[in-house]
Amino acid sequence: MPLNALFESDLRVVNVGVPSFAEALRQAGAEAVQVDWKPPLPVSEESRRTIARHRARIERANAQALERILSAAPRWVGMGRALDTIPGMHEDLLLHAGPPITWDRMCGPLQGAIIGALLYERRATSVAAARKLAASGKIRFAPCHEHGTTGPMAGVVSPSMPVFIVRNETHGNRAFATMNEGLGKVLRYGAYGPDVIERLRWMERELYPVLRAAIEHLGGIDLKHIMAQALHMGDELHNRNRAGTSLLYRALAPAIVRTCTDTDAAARVLEFINGNDHFFLNLSMPAGKATLDPARGIAGSSVCVVMARNGTDFGVQLAGTGASWFTGPAAVPDALFFPGYTRKDANPDIGDSAITETYGLGGFAIAAAPAIVQFVGGTAADAVGYTQRMYEICAGESRSYQVPSLDFRGTPTGIDAVKVVEKNILPFIDTGVAHRKPGVGQIGAGVLNAPPEPFQRAYEGLAGVLGGKRR
Amino acid sequence: MPLNALFESDLRVVNVGVPSFAEALRQAGAEAVQVDWKPPLPVSEESRRTIARHRARIERANAQALERILSAAPRWVGMGRALDTIPGMHEDLLLHAGPPITWDRMCGPLQGAIIGALLYERRATSVAAARKLAASGKIRFAPCHEHGTTGPMAGVVSPSMPVFIVRNETHGNRAFATMNEGLGKVLRYGAYGPDVIERLRWMERELYPVLRAAIEHLGGIDLKHIMAQALHMGDELHNRNRAGTSLLYRALAPAIVRTCTDTDAAARVLEFINGNDHFFLNLSMPAGKATLDPARGIAGSSVCVVMARNGTDFGVQLAGTGASWFTGPAAVPDALFFPGYTRKDANPDIGDSAITETYGLGGFAIAAAPAIVQFVGGTAADAVGYTQRMYEICAGESRSYQVPSLDFRGTPTGIDAVKVVEKNILPFIDTGVAHRKPGVGQIGAGVLNAPPEPFQRAYEGLAGVLGGKRR
Repeated sequence: MPLNALFESDLRVVNVGVPSFAEALRQAGAEAVQVDWKPPLPVSEESRRTIARHRARIERANAQALERILSAAPRWVGMGRALDTIPGMHEDLLLHAGPPITWDRMCGPLQGAIIGALLYERRATSVAAARKLAASGKIRFAPCHEHGTTGPMAGVVSPSMPVFIVRNETHGNRAFATMNEGLGKVLRYGAYGPDVIERLRWMERELYPVLRAAIEHLGGIDLKHIMAQALHMGDELHNRNRAGTSLLYRALAPAIVRTCTDTDAAARVLEFINGNDHFFLNLSMPAGKATLDPARGIAGSSVCVVMARNGTDFGVQLAGTGASWFTGPAAVPDALFFPGYTRKDANPDIGDSAITETYGLGGFAIAAAPAIVQFVGGTAADAVGYTQRMYEICAGESRSYQVPSLDFRGTPTGIDAVKVVEKNILPFIDTGVAHRKPGVGQIGAGVLNAPPEPFQRAYEGLAGVLGGKRR
Repeated sequence: MPLNALFESDLRVVNVGVPSFAEALRQAGAEAVQVDWKPPLPVSEESRRTIARHRARIERANAQALERILSAAPRWVGMGRALDTIPGMHEDLLLHAGPPITWDRMCGPLQGAIIGALLYERRATSVAAARKLAASGKIRFAPCHEHGTTGPMAGVVSPSMPVFIVRNETHGNRAFATMNEGLGKVLRYGAYGPDVIERLRWMERELYPVLRAAIEHLGGIDLKHIMAQALHMGDELHNRNRAGTSLLYRALAPAIVRTCTDTDAAARVLEFINGNDHFFLNLSMPAGKATLDPARGIAGSSVCVVMARNGTDFGVQLAGTGASWFTGPAAVPDALFFPGYTRKDANPDIGDSAITETYGLGGFAIAAAPAIVQFVGGTAADAVGYTQRMYEICAGESRSYQVPSLDFRGTPTGIDAVKVVEKNILPFIDTGVAHRKPGVGQIGAGVLNAPPEPFQRAYEGLAGVLGGKRR
């Protein structure tokens, strides 16, 4: 019995609640409207009125911010030592992921990575000495994001570390990130054992000069092109980077062969990259930073240019609110844990890698990466649903990064903090999970929504600027 | 208004015709049965009765054939020259795609590839001389499939060509294929210009020894593992091999660096593979041949072990009908054509590459490769629909090759000719399209269903064997 024979006219249905039924009707050709209403996130009545009064201006500013983001053309153009390359880097400075934080408030894995960086830099010869130095005030700490840099997980960058240089060919700005160390016991997850330090030294001594010569020989690699292809190959470029790493490797290998006279070194470098499917993450992140930075300083814009976590606080910056950080407590992801670990072992969300979501990849593009649900939990249909929901809170859609299973629709891009507050839909992030104690490392991977507080505070902050008040 | 409030009990609907409505209901949680009935393909009443009488035996035989197919473990283990490697190869023999065919019935691109092979072998110094030699009877022609080999498109293999050696680690049998030449003007699409011949000579002179040394150094590469991963990365491994090629390249490159002392040669080899996203096709095809051959000779089985086309005829072989070919006219694919070409220029379907569909990949796995619709036409939802339909005519599902967007369901595997006839659902194939004239090359890519006649004849042939008659 054809179901719509029950109706005199075409179906028109308003569905409140469970969205799958509306979707079924829509696929059946009926016109369905999904009303999944939640009250907005609480904000002050004064801010609400200010935002309402400036809505047209905000929308114009957001269109401008979106255009800057969509027109970006990130390209890996070279490599350098952090001290010589990152603006404002100095001998006593360590960069870290997320918003600003003091030593005493740092979570375990961030403290662990700081300890490891001081051992690597030979500023301390024991964990105890490193702890003492870190707490002494002699070492300064600053967010990567305040130095044009992005760091996954703990995100610690020390002066001797080599960094990728990514240039936005459209706007001329640059961004930086260290090279990815691989999985297991690694500095970014807070591990600092002798194997961790030795690997970092090998990366400086052998991996860095080999890659630097290869990228100079090639004259750069177009990251936007690789990332667009990788989304057609099941990556979302946050928690799954297998395709991006593969395509990068294909471009790099002939150049490594042509420029590296030590064939054993060349083979070791290729084997190292081949052994680490996340190698490309540390290029998709500065690509995002280079993409988003030109949207900074657009008066009135509520588009996010940063979402970043230090393992204690989750911080947001908007295009229209200058250098201000809006923060709230970082949450623990819903995760699949490695054998032997549980949620009790998990550190709250950490890392600058949410830059990927901020420019329309990661959790926002998870519909392009159905295989990731094996790693973070859920079903392929969940992945499609997550991406579809993010269109609700974005200023637009990518012209370059597409979701094949949504018939090549551009990924949701340019998170609008006003929409986040008004629709009460929080950005969806997929991420790795670190042990909460220093020195352990990764214990799982999972998903979570950003906490509400940074967006409520960003909304208030933008209203303050628009209303003529300084924060 | 929630729609199912209209019903006293849960929805139970029989939907005849347009399947999307049934799918919508199913997604909404209702129990729906899709009845998309077509009359069976016509076969003789006697054969129909014989098949009906032996149904239990056929099913037992098919279960055995399926188990042989699913348990296969294809591994690239080495390389060799066709003359020294392929069983039965000799100086005057040329292998070709599809079922047996004589020179006068060969289509344009197959004649073109024969001409090119004779020029490459220096058996002729002009196209006219090559044509004359090919028609003289001095040169023998045989299907690749009768020599453990698979050839894409024209599929011509001549004595001097190097071939991949793939071993099925479970059953010990081997299969072979030449190396993929890349896109554009290439022998397999019937081109035979000087650039085509020179490329073939370079492949013999430089590519072959470099790859042979690398694969010997590695001790082999597990193709099943690469193919399983590639399906998670948007390949279906017939018309899209970008992920398979990437993963193969990642495994090969360090070994090439370690074994090839001539760095220019090593770089050229890597650049050649990097420049050809279809390089892996010529490994997924012999992997399929090695997977399916052990299912041959299972009395009573209606499972296909070969679907192959020579550009004139489409041929099928069954597990239960020995060396018999069942053929019918090859059709022209529905295709997207390169600029300047139309359907009128297209040769009918050609190549052994339908081996991929025969072991559960290619068109049968197209739901894993939504990005391919950009290349062959249609929508991502069409791709899912094509795969879902193929479960109807298969003996089972792969345990290794999965479709992420169908929540990792195994691909439909083991085409059952009895089901094809009884359900009148023809195998779905996606494929490249050659120009119908010799010497031109590829003009597009598209999709088509296998023709009915080979399956009707295979059904009759199996009935003949089961009923005690020899064909």
